[in-house]
Amino acid sequence: MAKALDGLKVLDLTHAYNGPFCTTLLADNGAEVIKIESPKGDQCRAWGPIDNKSGESGFFAFLNRNKKGITLNLKTEEGKAIFRELVKDADVVVENYRPGVMKKLGLNYEVLKKINSRLIYAAGSGFGQTGPITNRPCYDIVAQSMGGMVNLTGFPESIPTKVGPSIADNVTGIYLCVGLLMALYNREKTGMGQVVDVAMLDTIFSLLENAIVIQTMTGKTPERQGNIDPSIAPFDIYKAEDGYIAVGVGNDKLWSIFCELIGRQDLITNEKFITNDLRCKNYVPELKNIISEWIKDKTKKELEYMFDEAGIPCGPVLNMQEAIDHPQIQAREMMVHINHPTIGEMYFQGCPIKLSRTPSSVDTPAPLLGQHNEEIYGQYLKSKEEVASMRERGII
Amino acid sequence: MAKALDGLKVLDLTHAYNGPFCTTLLADNGAEVIKIESPKGDQCRAWGPIDNKSGESGFFAFLNRNKKGITLNLKTEEGKAIFRELVKDADVVVENYRPGVMKKLGLNYEVLKKINSRLIYAAGSGFGQTGPITNRPCYDIVAQSMGGMVNLTGFPESIPTKVGPSIADNVTGIYLCVGLLMALYNREKTGMGQVVDVAMLDTIFSLLENAIVIQTMTGKTPERQGNIDPSIAPFDIYKAEDGYIAVGVGNDKLWSIFCELIGRQDLITNEKFITNDLRCKNYVPELKNIISEWIKDKTKKELEYMFDEAGIPCGPVLNMQEAIDHPQIQAREMMVHINHPTIGEMYFQGCPIKLSRTPSSVDTPAPLLGQHNEEIYGQYLKSKEEVASMRERGII
Repeated sequence: MAKALDGLKVLDLTHAYNGPFCTTLLADNGAEVIKIESPKGDQCRAWGPIDNKSGESGFFAFLNRNKKGITLNLKTEEGKAIFRELVKDADVVVENYRPGVMKKLGLNYEVLKKINSRLIYAAGSGFGQTGPITNRPCYDIVAQSMGGMVNLTGFPESIPTKVGPSIADNVTGIYLCVGLLMALYNREKTGMGQVVDVAMLDTIFSLLENAIVIQTMTGKTPERQGNIDPSIAPFDIYKAEDGYIAVGVGNDKLWSIFCELIGRQDLITNEKFITNDLRCKNYVPELKNIISEWIKDKTKKELEYMFDEAGIPCGPVLNMQEAIDHPQIQAREMMVHINHPTIGEMYFQGCPIKLSRTPSSVDTPAPLLGQHNEEIYGQYLKSKEEVASMRERGII
Repeated sequence: MAKALDGLKVLDLTHAYNGPFCTTLLADNGAEVIKIESPKGDQCRAWGPIDNKSGESGFFAFLNRNKKGITLNLKTEEGKAIFRELVKDADVVVENYRPGVMKKLGLNYEVLKKINSRLIYAAGSGFGQTGPITNRPCYDIVAQSMGGMVNLTGFPESIPTKVGPSIADNVTGIYLCVGLLMALYNREKTGMGQVVDVAMLDTIFSLLENAIVIQTMTGKTPERQGNIDPSIAPFDIYKAEDGYIAVGVGNDKLWSIFCELIGRQDLITNEKFITNDLRCKNYVPELKNIISEWIKDKTKKELEYMFDEAGIPCGPVLNMQEAIDHPQIQAREMMVHINHPTIGEMYFQGCPIKLSRTPSSVDTPAPLLGQHNEEIYGQYLKSKEEVASMRERGII
């Protein structure tokens, strides 16, 4: 079936997480993504979970589906020459080395654009390709901390809390994808490529929504608020008999319905709770206690059913197995199967972007190290014997 | 200066947060985004912070910069006719109504594509355009809870914790942008538009990285781990004298350097900490206590300087003011000024996607309600008198 990015050729120099997350979006949508690893392989091939039988990384296998894999030693002159050859008819190069590495290799954009002026060069990094700390090493937790996210997550009485999953990494990958697609659109009009530069720090900072304007307009520094929303009440996560459930009562109409549902019509006319502003002010401890008491001996399922019938937005806090099994996740094909050559049957996330005429799909498993060397090098560049010789000499 | 999406015409029916976040990325990069509000205005115009003097929403002003604003009552026949007229030469429609609303209005994709077969129709929603709970109302906190993010954030001994900022909303907006740009690329090749469907629930689920493969490959359900990384140690957020700092020691080489830095060379050969695996096993309480003791009476600045000199990834937990003032955020132009007609001088986030040849920029403030009615309707469709009459009759 046709896919949106059919015909797009991507040279993928990325490793670990943010870069590969970008190229996964491209590969799921039909781009030919050629993942270029050093002969030692992407560090992510050692990241858990590791399959007992094959020793293969489940993380790598999930993150690199639909891509082709070749090895290439970019520290050798012959390796560099091969890469420059591949660049000639590539549309996009994606990399997430520390800024400066590609220049040191002599393969930065200024060099590559002379080979192919239509090339789009997308670079993900911790702090960006410019600025006073451009070269500093970065992890997700560092970008989350410095970008302001950690200070806004968690409870006021507790310590600042990082977001569990690595959102600095994966959202950087998504932005990188936005940027290179914009550059592609522009190239269709102008014929010229350019550099796309996305930083994990900038990414986190961009996700803080109104916290920044609160700071600049009011001078007050927003602080973490746990699970409540400072401007809507009730809006919280409550403890049910068998777990937790999120409930949001966003306006006065829902508030009336909510009060009737919990059998407390008296609250509707209680002057402490009559407007959303007052509910926010008087939420802790009185209103929170009333609701917590009512919820605590009911099951999540029971509550979800009741709130849903009443039209009140709610949702249980699901763990991984529960989320995987949820009928909506299933119906949306957010879990997909693939048969991996050494791990065997695998089951992981599908693609969240649903295109009606050119749907994404997971068609091929992640490549074994150098799996497509013969295909790619043979097809474009070299004889069988040359490929074998390159391997012996550590070029691939 | 030329921008990547110059010439792209976007009809923006979005409100609140996820949809507008998508169209901001488009507008920052040169698309003509025409924000179409009901004559009552986007609900987000009432969201804090509110400017005391003008009563204008800082949230709205930040989120809708670079867009034009018109009003249109899509519940009237005349309003629908005008919208269909606008669709004729539009490239993209973006909306984030509850699924079914556009169909009820008679303005769903099946109708619009007959007017313009090249149209790309991008829809953001809580649960998606399909599936058993497609029509259920959703808030960010609900998507974060059901998608598995809340269960993975926070401390094992504490309750599940939502991510402070609304990441279900804003990442859904970014994915929507990815999808519509892919559809645009495809349209350049095929001449045909299509629907892009992104759900907040799917978005959150897609961000869980290896938590899903851990579940499916090992059968073990991952749980929240606070600020540590289960597979790297030391990797945590520590309390310094004047705040918190994140530090990650990702490999054995860094571990040696780290031990020397804290004056504990003895730990390098201590058999409890000799490999990363052992450090993970023996991190709590012994190693954590040693490091916490060493860090607690030093300042963030002092620590940052020392770790940086040693090449150990680290970063202070910054609050909003500190993040805004950080030299890297400043150098990256992640804060921008704009002069708003009623609020005055404003200062908020810039664009995290840096394109070298066609840089994004913030050029115009968010529109006042209906500010561009005369321009848009006058330019394309109506005489001055007709526009005035439409306003009187509540069409715009």
